[in-house]
Amino acid sequence: MRGMKKVATGFVPVIAVSRKAPKPLQRQIYDAYRTAIIRRSLRGGQQIPSTRSLASELGISRIPVLNAYAQLLAEGYFESRAGAGTFVSTALPDRHGSGASELQQSREMSSGPRLISRRAAALRSYAPQPWIYTRGAFSLGQVAFDHFPLRVWSNLVARHSRIIHPSAFLYSDPRGTRDFRETIATYLRTARGVNCEADQIIVVSGSQQAIDISARALLDPGSQVWLEEPGYRLTSDVLSLAGCQLIPVPVDDEGLNVAEGIRLCDSARAAYVTPSHQLPLGATMSASRRLQLLDWAQLSGAWIIEDDYDSEYRYGNMPIASLQGLDHNSRVIYIGTFSKTLFPSLRLGYMVLPPDLVERFLTVRRAMDIYPPYLHQAVLTDFIRQGHFSRHVRRARRIYMERRSKLVDALRKQFGPELPILGAEAGMHLVVMLPKECRDVELAKKAAAEKLWLWPLSLSYLSKNVRQGLILGFGSVTDAEIPSAVRRLKALIETM
Amino acid sequence: MRGMKKVATGFVPVIAVSRKAPKPLQRQIYDAYRTAIIRRSLRGGQQIPSTRSLASELGISRIPVLNAYAQLLAEGYFESRAGAGTFVSTALPDRHGSGASELQQSREMSSGPRLISRRAAALRSYAPQPWIYTRGAFSLGQVAFDHFPLRVWSNLVARHSRIIHPSAFLYSDPRGTRDFRETIATYLRTARGVNCEADQIIVVSGSQQAIDISARALLDPGSQVWLEEPGYRLTSDVLSLAGCQLIPVPVDDEGLNVAEGIRLCDSARAAYVTPSHQLPLGATMSASRRLQLLDWAQLSGAWIIEDDYDSEYRYGNMPIASLQGLDHNSRVIYIGTFSKTLFPSLRLGYMVLPPDLVERFLTVRRAMDIYPPYLHQAVLTDFIRQGHFSRHVRRARRIYMERRSKLVDALRKQFGPELPILGAEAGMHLVVMLPKECRDVELAKKAAAEKLWLWPLSLSYLSKNVRQGLILGFGSVTDAEIPSAVRRLKALIETM
Repeated sequence: MRGMKKVATGFVPVIAVSRKAPKPLQRQIYDAYRTAIIRRSLRGGQQIPSTRSLASELGISRIPVLNAYAQLLAEGYFESRAGAGTFVSTALPDRHGSGASELQQSREMSSGPRLISRRAAALRSYAPQPWIYTRGAFSLGQVAFDHFPLRVWSNLVARHSRIIHPSAFLYSDPRGTRDFRETIATYLRTARGVNCEADQIIVVSGSQQAIDISARALLDPGSQVWLEEPGYRLTSDVLSLAGCQLIPVPVDDEGLNVAEGIRLCDSARAAYVTPSHQLPLGATMSASRRLQLLDWAQLSGAWIIEDDYDSEYRYGNMPIASLQGLDHNSRVIYIGTFSKTLFPSLRLGYMVLPPDLVERFLTVRRAMDIYPPYLHQAVLTDFIRQGHFSRHVRRARRIYMERRSKLVDALRKQFGPELPILGAEAGMHLVVMLPKECRDVELAKKAAAEKLWLWPLSLSYLSKNVRQGLILGFGSVTDAEIPSAVRRLKALIETM
Repeated sequence: MRGMKKVATGFVPVIAVSRKAPKPLQRQIYDAYRTAIIRRSLRGGQQIPSTRSLASELGISRIPVLNAYAQLLAEGYFESRAGAGTFVSTALPDRHGSGASELQQSREMSSGPRLISRRAAALRSYAPQPWIYTRGAFSLGQVAFDHFPLRVWSNLVARHSRIIHPSAFLYSDPRGTRDFRETIATYLRTARGVNCEADQIIVVSGSQQAIDISARALLDPGSQVWLEEPGYRLTSDVLSLAGCQLIPVPVDDEGLNVAEGIRLCDSARAAYVTPSHQLPLGATMSASRRLQLLDWAQLSGAWIIEDDYDSEYRYGNMPIASLQGLDHNSRVIYIGTFSKTLFPSLRLGYMVLPPDLVERFLTVRRAMDIYPPYLHQAVLTDFIRQGHFSRHVRRARRIYMERRSKLVDALRKQFGPELPILGAEAGMHLVVMLPKECRDVELAKKAAAEKLWLWPLSLSYLSKNVRQGLILGFGSVTDAEIPSAVRRLKALIETM
């Protein structure tokens, strides 16, 4: 089906006919179709409803419809295909090229002052950089979808899509289904050391929406927020959109430097952190930093947003409990996602809230998009309860560990032992630092032209004090591709 | 499966063991489990990983794990079930009742000042009113899910859930898939008179998210916005959350009173309207009001947000083209949803943007939730292209028309010809006005106790100048239930 030119069928066009009009009905129908085709509201190849349907929709007899169709066929506006029906002619000249219509172009010219919001205007440009929405070596954030247990999954999807149950169709709880939240709660208590009950959980579309909801529920325009520097740029975008003032706080190999944060802005209203696997540099926040951060939050009345986006994939022996599990003062908003453990186009994640904040967060969430979609909540509940999720995560961890080792080995082989490699102890990406004179954005653009995807580290900085490096994702690259991709990377760097 | 007490299996708990610690490994494992069970991180009935898995996860030999498990079994913390595995004992006293843990309660007490955002604090309470998330007579906004073409739909869902294609899994275009947007564009040009190309469309989770994105892309804190009075309360919530100042503008039987809007606030930055079927009173905006509104927008540089939430269901003969199709100045953001034509838990809708705004809207959308989920876009593309959508909408229109007629007849029979009934020409709800002394909220609460769902009209007003009435949904009530439900309504009103 994909890519094939098929067109929507059976829509009845907006045709207003009236028996009281001076024009006969047949002429009104003819004129309406002709105008719609000339104005390109109807397009070549698009199916026209049968004379019977149109007559029934318009509440008139079939005769004027038949006459109008006959004339449109005779004049070449319509064409009929045996056994298939009547279509707008594909032989009409497409006078406006493939793109915008004449009308649209004139609209844009006549349109006067066009004021958008200050915050939207200030966001960095959307123009997608060549290294995003790609896959393979070394696309960031993408998963090994070819190892996904598709049969088990699609059987569950098929089963749940056949269920006639009101909750599968109708408006319901903005938190998500109870079964799904219970399942998530058990998982988080056991595997992540999160202290929670199902009632504290809100199902969201992913970490990004969870941050958005948190910002809007907790922060005011002008509120100061600590962000990891370097950090995840979509976090700064969503906090800017909420009107917050961003305070970049440096990270080192123990994670966010809390003392430096306090020095820069003791009165910040919140801190956003990725303590399990700092994005992008990969440090795990040390125990003493965790306690320092919690103490600061409690003393200053600040909130901590803990984004635990990929902690399921750890390659050392020691699992690390969440920051939330250490918090005795309900200061932590804990955020997680299925984008990395399952796949991103699922758009499912969750947030765990302090009990006293649940009601206000739900009010905010309902105002934003009412409630989450049903089907995949039911599917994922079964997928987890039947043990498929644990098995998949264990298997995926082995795959990513293997890819990581291959990547580290290949980097060592090509670049020698001096190349700084950071953050390879967990997750689906690592970072290599570049010498200052090697501009990472320029390198990434050159590489993209050869279909090698490099994410420039320098783009992860908010301040001007950037370091040059590459964030290399190994989620969607096969073991076999890695050595040659690293050789190409070496060759590219040498040309710079 | 539903309701059955099943627990997530196979999660490896967060246990940090160290060979260097003074305690033997066996004791470390025993202590970790015992503490987790006492603290209720692990709960009765929850499955424990096998000794083999745990040993492998921790990177130690199986012996200490076996010994620790034996001791936990002997002391009654674990229990084993033949053929099923090892579980946390269900015989342990659940010392904290069914709800929050001791730890949580102490956390809430010790937690100090807890500042949330001013806007979140100001939103009306979330506490769900008894008449929402219900179905039957006369629940609002719910659909006839028992008439949904489930077999065709679930076959498409099953087919697309088996497809291994990168775009089905990975991060991709924040607008949604091209195929889906092309399909929507054809539908809107043909059936709704919307002037658009696929590139102007963004796929969203529903009207609510579309309004949220529009507000954040176009409006600043303090921006004034016209809202229909009475109107849809979730619209005022989302605009309040964006910091806008709400200007309620009265509606009459021609829709929003544009002259009154200009008198109240000529300089408003935007107007939110439901011109096809005013929510809740049901008027269709007249042609002259439409032109007045477009003229005002063009002269003052304002935006129009057109929410076309249920125009597919019109019971008169004349289809009405969208306001967007009349606009020669690209001032209209057109919003639509599949919540009413298909079902709400799908969470799919779309917005059509003026071409020059697309890039900034995408930037805002990406910051909010990155991109829409994949599966149902692919399913719905096929569902529309294969003609199922048109057929379903035609069939649903007949069903709702029948229900509407039954409801109007029953109301006339019980209340006589004087009862004012509004907005019955389209959609899935109508409004009956009540005498001033009959308080609609009180009536709705009484009715809810008897499982009759009435939506009080007075809650749809922003100003104090409210009218008493009932918004009666007929989407999810069968023909057969209507007469007796109206009799019960009559009896209830008489007790007031």
